[in-house]
Amino acid sequence: MTDAPMTAHAATATAGQVLSGYLTGQAGAFLRALPQAVGEAGARPGAVPSVNSPGGTASTGELLRAVRRIGGALHTFGALLDPAWAQQSRSELRWLLNLLAQEPGYLRRTARLLAALDSLSSTASPGESRGPGMLAGHQGAPKARALLERQLTLARTRAHSVVLQELRSARLHALADRMTLLVGETPLVESAMGRAGEVLLPQASAAFTALGAAVQRLPLSRATVAYQGDALHRLGTAGSVPAQVPAQVPAQPRPVADADSALATDDAPWQRVRILVKRARYALEVCGRPVAELDALNEVLDRHQDATEAAVTVATAARTPRITPATAYVLGVVHADQRLEVESARYAFGRQWPTLPQHGWQEWASA
Amino acid sequence: MTDAPMTAHAATATAGQVLSGYLTGQAGAFLRALPQAVGEAGARPGAVPSVNSPGGTASTGELLRAVRRIGGALHTFGALLDPAWAQQSRSELRWLLNLLAQEPGYLRRTARLLAALDSLSSTASPGESRGPGMLAGHQGAPKARALLERQLTLARTRAHSVVLQELRSARLHALADRMTLLVGETPLVESAMGRAGEVLLPQASAAFTALGAAVQRLPLSRATVAYQGDALHRLGTAGSVPAQVPAQVPAQPRPVADADSALATDDAPWQRVRILVKRARYALEVCGRPVAELDALNEVLDRHQDATEAAVTVATAARTPRITPATAYVLGVVHADQRLEVESARYAFGRQWPTLPQHGWQEWASA
Repeated sequence: MTDAPMTAHAATATAGQVLSGYLTGQAGAFLRALPQAVGEAGARPGAVPSVNSPGGTASTGELLRAVRRIGGALHTFGALLDPAWAQQSRSELRWLLNLLAQEPGYLRRTARLLAALDSLSSTASPGESRGPGMLAGHQGAPKARALLERQLTLARTRAHSVVLQELRSARLHALADRMTLLVGETPLVESAMGRAGEVLLPQASAAFTALGAAVQRLPLSRATVAYQGDALHRLGTAGSVPAQVPAQVPAQPRPVADADSALATDDAPWQRVRILVKRARYALEVCGRPVAELDALNEVLDRHQDATEAAVTVATAARTPRITPATAYVLGVVHADQRLEVESARYAFGRQWPTLPQHGWQEWASA
Repeated sequence: MTDAPMTAHAATATAGQVLSGYLTGQAGAFLRALPQAVGEAGARPGAVPSVNSPGGTASTGELLRAVRRIGGALHTFGALLDPAWAQQSRSELRWLLNLLAQEPGYLRRTARLLAALDSLSSTASPGESRGPGMLAGHQGAPKARALLERQLTLARTRAHSVVLQELRSARLHALADRMTLLVGETPLVESAMGRAGEVLLPQASAAFTALGAAVQRLPLSRATVAYQGDALHRLGTAGSVPAQVPAQVPAQPRPVADADSALATDDAPWQRVRILVKRARYALEVCGRPVAELDALNEVLDRHQDATEAAVTVATAARTPRITPATAYVLGVVHADQRLEVESARYAFGRQWPTLPQHGWQEWASA
């Protein structure tokens, strides 16, 4: 896949040429992946893709990849585009992102939580099996595993039904038409006629500045101290979605989803930084200047996100009526384990962030 | 308190003079603290010392301090002492140590677990209170707190009764007589006539060598990686007491104690190192060469020990019949939190160990 970097012709190309080159490439990827994703989703109407053969995720993954990149570019370089068109496009892309991301998200969460459960309960040597904690674990672990698997499978099945329904909707067809338009002609405004280096780099720079400002507001100095316990020290992790984080409105009622989309206040600034890291990544892709350190930060924050959501799922499962105390106990351990993953991701971020070449890339503008 | 270091007269004193000087000082401390400890224990027959006014722990602490030091010196410098007398003395000192350490141990554990519970459940801002995890926490935290406090108070009360009974026993009187003998005349053998520097330092060196060998067997390279999850990854923490750890035989049946004295196999090598650190500390005290880094390691391993025992207490409490799932869930979180403290202590040890001047002190022998 070509991301149409401006490296070769940066000196002579206009900003509009570089931006529309990038958007054309991504819209093409979108249009290639869409029918495959629709076909694969329809081919498994029962929709219980297992963790081992997730089915359909390859083309859904391609589709999500393009959706994120187009949305990011439309945000960062919005000043070069017809405002109404860009805003509507972003809104529709966000809708599709939220729709498509659910099912793979549940798959990842299932794999994460079952792996955590197995890891937590498998270290017993035969001679240890009579200890009190181990006994509680032995009693509760299989039940907790079955409970989480059942609830996540149900949530995933419902998410799949919604996807099936929406993939044939007029709304998706309209979005596909928008992407087709993008391949042919990007609706640019006059400022896009400026030189690529002079127009695009300051806007990518603004994306970086926004990221840096958000990171300044993180408790980074605490996060870089191992075992400070900040992420764990909350028995509950869910709250109302803070205003500054784009709210994800679920298309249908989902059993686990109310909790899933809720973020702890504590987590919100990190979630915000995750979005800004992705935007900065895509902005530098448009400029043909990928920064490997941003990819690493992105991975760490994806892990942070997955672990926060998994912790909420576990806390929600613990409220299931009529579970045994042994099951609840194991869920408490798993909840803490996921919050520890959150803390671990913050620690990793705090150590990686200073390695990011935060200003060096701007010097390329003068090259 | 004078620890009778050999610094001043090391060049001329015999090993026996230095060792008996140290033992005399510690035995004097023992004999001063004993009647106070007995009186204070008897003055609170109901025996529910609160965490805030622990009562009696000052003189019990002094007593424990002397008991540990005398026992350590008798072990490390046993070759200089009448073997039968040294062995019997160590055995009786270990009995008193196990007897006296229970009550302050339960007090520390109560303080530790209630603080953890409060810290885990107090971070909710008012706006967050409706999240699912928070709700489970709100329901379970007060009950879990009451349950742990009740069980630990019961255990502490029983330990106190045992102390009250044994403090007036013939066995304790016989031990006090032994300590009185120590103040007057330490039963030395002929090899104690050698020069202090030439006799004591090699034996202190052997204590250091044993410590270094035990540390070599620790998974230190893993422990120094933050968030590797080793200590947490066991739903249960208790097993049979491994053979190499001195078994603590409880004098009376105790409700929490069966679990308390059980150590996870995983924890045993660390527990072993804790004992060896204490022995090395006391050996260097005898030689008048205290090493501050050893004090720091000792503190870290005491924290490790307290956290492992607290985790077992929580796992045991989770098996209490008829607790609610919400209570059990909170206990699971607290259990994981204590195992995280274990991991944190190992991490701290792994970073502090290389700072220990492991060979430098031996050079003093030639000074």
